[in-house]
Amino acid sequence: MPSREENTKPTRTNPGSQSALRLLNRERVLQALSAGPATQAELSRATGLSTATISNIVKELEREGSVRTEPTTSSGRRALNVRLVADSSVAVGIDFGRRHVRVVLATRDYRVMAEAAASLSLGHHAELGISTARGLMERLLTENGLSHSDVIGAGVGIPGPLDRRSHTVAHGAVLPEWVGIETDTRLREALGIPVHVDNDANLGALAEATWGPHGGADNLVFVKIGSGIGAGLIVNGAPVYGNLGITGEIGHTAIDDRGAVCRCGSRGCLETVASTTTMIEQLSRNEPGPVSTQSIIAAARNGHPPTLRVLDDAGLAIGHALGTVANLLNPEVIVVGGPLAELGELLLAPIRRGILRHTIPMVGANTSLTVSSLGERAEALGAAALVFRRPAVTKR
Amino acid sequence: MPSREENTKPTRTNPGSQSALRLLNRERVLQALSAGPATQAELSRATGLSTATISNIVKELEREGSVRTEPTTSSGRRALNVRLVADSSVAVGIDFGRRHVRVVLATRDYRVMAEAAASLSLGHHAELGISTARGLMERLLTENGLSHSDVIGAGVGIPGPLDRRSHTVAHGAVLPEWVGIETDTRLREALGIPVHVDNDANLGALAEATWGPHGGADNLVFVKIGSGIGAGLIVNGAPVYGNLGITGEIGHTAIDDRGAVCRCGSRGCLETVASTTTMIEQLSRNEPGPVSTQSIIAAARNGHPPTLRVLDDAGLAIGHALGTVANLLNPEVIVVGGPLAELGELLLAPIRRGILRHTIPMVGANTSLTVSSLGERAEALGAAALVFRRPAVTKR
Repeated sequence: MPSREENTKPTRTNPGSQSALRLLNRERVLQALSAGPATQAELSRATGLSTATISNIVKELEREGSVRTEPTTSSGRRALNVRLVADSSVAVGIDFGRRHVRVVLATRDYRVMAEAAASLSLGHHAELGISTARGLMERLLTENGLSHSDVIGAGVGIPGPLDRRSHTVAHGAVLPEWVGIETDTRLREALGIPVHVDNDANLGALAEATWGPHGGADNLVFVKIGSGIGAGLIVNGAPVYGNLGITGEIGHTAIDDRGAVCRCGSRGCLETVASTTTMIEQLSRNEPGPVSTQSIIAAARNGHPPTLRVLDDAGLAIGHALGTVANLLNPEVIVVGGPLAELGELLLAPIRRGILRHTIPMVGANTSLTVSSLGERAEALGAAALVFRRPAVTKR
Repeated sequence: MPSREENTKPTRTNPGSQSALRLLNRERVLQALSAGPATQAELSRATGLSTATISNIVKELEREGSVRTEPTTSSGRRALNVRLVADSSVAVGIDFGRRHVRVVLATRDYRVMAEAAASLSLGHHAELGISTARGLMERLLTENGLSHSDVIGAGVGIPGPLDRRSHTVAHGAVLPEWVGIETDTRLREALGIPVHVDNDANLGALAEATWGPHGGADNLVFVKIGSGIGAGLIVNGAPVYGNLGITGEIGHTAIDDRGAVCRCGSRGCLETVASTTTMIEQLSRNEPGPVSTQSIIAAARNGHPPTLRVLDDAGLAIGHALGTVANLLNPEVIVVGGPLAELGELLLAPIRRGILRHTIPMVGANTSLTVSSLGERAEALGAAALVFRRPAVTKR
């Protein structure tokens, strides 16, 4: 028999808190309904949930306008038929960037109903971004004959790590204008609808695992290469938020321990060797005219040797960091996004070499690498997907 | 209205395949029962599952001996009371090492009922390990008055990455004796009970998130420092298996791009600079007698400068690799296991410096670092926990 000391704390990993359970049950019901209308009894059989649970979830979904119910008969008995309201209830996806804001309206069956974007100057104040987003959203709603009551909520992407405790941008050189703003509260006030905020890389990952050709991937890495470099991680089918919400910080993987000091306080981080800012700096030394992301893309396509070399070095470094990620998480696919993604194989080839150089062979050989097919819309689409994954938030 | 091109594939991340759903439902029922006996109606209310689902799961659990049912009355009506069979049904946890095999019997309420271990010579054949494990298991069962029918199953830890497609050890220098053996089939045959195999680092992580003081942690990293270095990852409350089952390969994080060639085919991997094998090699150059893990521990405690320097360099490198992991996954806690863990702060101090040097400040400041309190039993306890998380496998 066990001695007293043998008793250890009977705590267990508990993935099922009440709110998580409720969310999961909602997701199941929505998933079952995405196959077509069903009676509450059919939903109960399809999900294993009790009819009482189904009834509660259906009431909640009906209240927020996500489903419609109608009396019907099933096997001669009265029943309640439930169908997704796909055409009149939408999610708004908003993507805030350093120089742009993009808004999409998406239906529950994952169609883009409408979209619009606006350019903004670098360093614009967050409030200008917010009012621009609001204007675009209102215009799209009006043009599509919709009102706020047709909107389930807005997903919002912000290009910076978000501290999930305070709902503020955690550390900000990429988007210093947002630092200190309590994003959820401010955006809910400004937009007048429920809001879910996440960082752009997480939303890119969610978009790829939802809308893209990798929809359904359970383990996926999305890496966004821009003036910053960040990754969104899908593990076991869900985004990874970690303890504080600061995850996927691949831009701060040490590549060169004696390299340039990084804004994070470390040295030789991936961002210091492979961000578009660094590439532009490196190429500017020998170029007479101004270098931009667009000029890099054009020069690479024209076979300009210094540009190809800079891309090669950056790609190898990105591959090095991604190789480390692949060794840890063994994803099915790594998707590369950001402005350089349109280079396709010109960008992927050095990244692929970097990955193969730094992964154990079985991982390297079995990890797909691709550019995003969602382009500039990835984050906004992911933001819309975020709404469909969350239970409705009571409007304030 | 959307144009035809606007329609994108309506695929969605689908965490709910039928078997995953069934497993999840089982877990909910077992979780509800861990609070005490309950009627089927109570279980339905506690879990949100239908009474039909509850009834099916209870039948399955009763068939495998995990629960007992008895007629009762509830509010004047006949009901079926369900209770966990904690005292007469056990899980076996088996940990195969390079030089040892350890077996524990654990009850469903997470107590160690009995345990035993045997030493084996380095390079012993897998079959010797298996027959030793079987002998220990049979002895423990007999000593505790139990038979095979009291055993729910065996969790088995193997110190090497497992390919989840073929159920074989994937690449093996750490345990070459196991390469090519179809572990699940062979062990099920040899032990005569259902078997679930996983690698030792995953089981260490599961043990820490189940049995240890961090029980309940949703995001946890367990790193085992030995002749190899591997990590087990708990993300969103569940172990990470990735696409093929090859995850947590932190030992192959590049630390020094010009460093020693590694068995994986890369260079300067963490294992080449910080494994116990490397430490022993480095210290053997200037020592007259043989150096071992035990002698390193003794020398470090005596303040032997070369040993402290080797530990410092290894710790910094381990911290570097763990910093990268923390930047990606933002765990609540990182737990260090393996033979050197008993050094406590002597080992943790350089690792902590390495982590702080390579994480963004908010992540570094909010990641706890600790040594395992489960010691040599961690993997065997995790193996037992694996059984309780899995549905029963039909015996062949």
